[in-house]
Amino acid sequence: MPRRQLHLNAFLMNTGHHEASWRLPESDPYAHVELDHYVRLARIAERGTFDSLFLADGPQLWGSVGQRPAGALEPLTLLTALATATEHIGLIATASTSYNSPYNLARKFASLDILSGGRAGWNIVTTAGAEAARNFGLDAEPAHAQRYARAAEFLDVALKLWDSWEDDAIVADKETGVWGDDTKIHPPRHRGTYFSVEGPLNVPRSPQGYPLLVQAGSSEDGRAFAARYAEAVFTAQQTVGDARAFYADLKSRTVAAGRDPEHIKVLPGLVPVLGSTEAEARAAERVLEDHIVYTHGVGNLERLLQLPAGSLELDAPLPADLPPESAIEGAKSRYTLVVELARRDRLTVRELIGRLGGGRGHLTFAGTPEQVADEIETWFTGGAADGFNIMPAVLPSGLDAFVEHVVPILRARGLLRTAYGPRRTLRDRYGLPRPANQHVKEVAPPLPAHAPTPTLV
Amino acid sequence: MPRRQLHLNAFLMNTGHHEASWRLPESDPYAHVELDHYVRLARIAERGTFDSLFLADGPQLWGSVGQRPAGALEPLTLLTALATATEHIGLIATASTSYNSPYNLARKFASLDILSGGRAGWNIVTTAGAEAARNFGLDAEPAHAQRYARAAEFLDVALKLWDSWEDDAIVADKETGVWGDDTKIHPPRHRGTYFSVEGPLNVPRSPQGYPLLVQAGSSEDGRAFAARYAEAVFTAQQTVGDARAFYADLKSRTVAAGRDPEHIKVLPGLVPVLGSTEAEARAAERVLEDHIVYTHGVGNLERLLQLPAGSLELDAPLPADLPPESAIEGAKSRYTLVVELARRDRLTVRELIGRLGGGRGHLTFAGTPEQVADEIETWFTGGAADGFNIMPAVLPSGLDAFVEHVVPILRARGLLRTAYGPRRTLRDRYGLPRPANQHVKEVAPPLPAHAPTPTLV
Repeated sequence: MPRRQLHLNAFLMNTGHHEASWRLPESDPYAHVELDHYVRLARIAERGTFDSLFLADGPQLWGSVGQRPAGALEPLTLLTALATATEHIGLIATASTSYNSPYNLARKFASLDILSGGRAGWNIVTTAGAEAARNFGLDAEPAHAQRYARAAEFLDVALKLWDSWEDDAIVADKETGVWGDDTKIHPPRHRGTYFSVEGPLNVPRSPQGYPLLVQAGSSEDGRAFAARYAEAVFTAQQTVGDARAFYADLKSRTVAAGRDPEHIKVLPGLVPVLGSTEAEARAAERVLEDHIVYTHGVGNLERLLQLPAGSLELDAPLPADLPPESAIEGAKSRYTLVVELARRDRLTVRELIGRLGGGRGHLTFAGTPEQVADEIETWFTGGAADGFNIMPAVLPSGLDAFVEHVVPILRARGLLRTAYGPRRTLRDRYGLPRPANQHVKEVAPPLPAHAPTPTLV
Repeated sequence: MPRRQLHLNAFLMNTGHHEASWRLPESDPYAHVELDHYVRLARIAERGTFDSLFLADGPQLWGSVGQRPAGALEPLTLLTALATATEHIGLIATASTSYNSPYNLARKFASLDILSGGRAGWNIVTTAGAEAARNFGLDAEPAHAQRYARAAEFLDVALKLWDSWEDDAIVADKETGVWGDDTKIHPPRHRGTYFSVEGPLNVPRSPQGYPLLVQAGSSEDGRAFAARYAEAVFTAQQTVGDARAFYADLKSRTVAAGRDPEHIKVLPGLVPVLGSTEAEARAAERVLEDHIVYTHGVGNLERLLQLPAGSLELDAPLPADLPPESAIEGAKSRYTLVVELARRDRLTVRELIGRLGGGRGHLTFAGTPEQVADEIETWFTGGAADGFNIMPAVLPSGLDAFVEHVVPILRARGLLRTAYGPRRTLRDRYGLPRPANQHVKEVAPPLPAHAPTPTLV
């Protein structure tokens, strides 16, 4: 029997996940708005037989443009362009349930899934922060619980829209002039708390049925949502122990929601910083830290912790009297992760900024390719991960180094595919079945169970 | 001095603009959801040195799927995929101001403009019909005037968002760690009747500043809107006389709005049906008419005229007591065009359906390539058109025939470019200047005047 296979996602971000990466001599500070940069990254990831690419997003400009490359191409648009420049790799776009309408978003994902031959994925976010809210007619951000309630209804509507055409609704009988079968079209006629959507969708059912559903928040609301809907979860975990606890919790919640625990893949973030020796890797890490502008970092940290400007001192620890996660309406799980990291490792504000600069709370691991592969294998075989969300500190060089030096080791150990197989959809890559249509009761049970059906070509 | 140049747009639609085109032996009834079909069409249009491609759209499924290929890939998504498969041609996507938010839509168009090197255009529609309204939380369609009021405010917000980054806001100084200049970022801070949008946009200003603005409604509200904002106008005109009157009216309204009449290009729709003789062209037209399912056509016509089902008889003329355009809340100018066509040519319902089957109210012209070129030249030199919106009855063959047989004649007469020039944006193709940023007062006067500025590379 073949070994259980590792899943790798390439999390693409501008010139890299380290906030100072754009200042390195090798980096192009305009890369984040250049198609060629992303095409190059996508092709490197395909060379490494990654499962997917991923783009984070928020519909607002983050803080000052003075500090680092700001703004971003809209992810669905950029990934559509990348669909035509790649052949195998999955394309996961972040989109907000708070600031989109189900009809438009369901249609865009169905369109990308069709155009890419079944490679679309949706990272479902509820979007924290007042800045985004103010771009969409609101004065303040909706409460965390309300955002998640809207997200759940959004998903229900979207799933109904994606199932509003049965797979065989198209007849295409030229002789009689009958193109489609109206009895196989099912308008959702949804009337709920947040949405009224008549439907049906105006796109036929796509190769995957609907995009792979991905989720990335680890708060209580976020975990409940993931257990119900998500097929892949991105998470930030600093230690293998914490990761193991999170993994076990999420799998058991998924079982409790009536789903197969194999149908949710857990991928912690990993920022690999490679060197041919450990000392060389640490030196590369220090070069990046030396490029951080610490005065910017203080302001960013104050924003994250919801403290007034001027509250933090660079060479002192965090204040002792920070509010609990329950009082935070923004990105809850990220708040707790940062505060716990600072306390556990007794970091000053300066040291904390240095640590966050690399992966914004994700695990940074500096070492030789062998050491990085060992760490990956330890987590993967130790019940802490089904794969990793690879977040290179510098792009494209960090992704290239990972594919050149770590991927061959993982392949030699039988943990990672050596080539893409004949099956082509993103769910095929992650070992997940194509979801049945909720209206085709004789073929499969209704959602949320996921019964295997043949992949459309 | 070179001759005034003709502008050509290729209006792409499934297997062609004739409603029965999908039933021909040559047609692929799944073409409308196949990327390869559209890539092929785009490359034919580029061979013909067309200015642009265009996709119509509405966020709803039209009527029954029984009649003809239904549903469509979302236009911005499809055109983004085509951007990477083409090099020169403009990409005009339809999107609704009634069923989108300005922030999301402005960002998507800015992203496509960047990814395509300045080739994006937006066909601005307000979207008639209750079917669309019911997909977005409404029970009935908003009144025509209200849709246009929202559209005007939408445009104002979008223009502010596109100008929220000055062209030189990015500094990229690696030495000092300063990436952007915050004084060159201008949040709109818009609070209006329909929208509150703080901004700024999270995408830098794009190669064209913003997409080419296109409009296609010819009602009173539509013309007023076009005079104020549009740089290209698609219109349905059945006779050169009507077209001349429309052209003169729109140019004079544009002058009255304080704009240069050269900065609005008028493109009537034209359905060319080609044959090596006139008789052969007429025979090709009859083959298409023979494939129409007339019982479907009656229902569609009743919907358009807002009559109860069963009101129309196939072999009788239209009823005499139809309501005036002012009583119609849907697609006003199309309503009037269809009614006038039936009355002017004394058509029965069957004959009217036959005429509409080809181009839905646009001018169908069956003839030899020479005759079609003559018709184009007559309109173009006679004050009726700045170019044409070419709507082949059958695709891809009709577009291919036009490029093979009509384009060489137009080139030989000096009316159409023989190759794309070195300037690359969609506005360059249409001979329009790049719009100045409204915040850069020393370089150019404020909008709506369009002062030339250098094209970004």
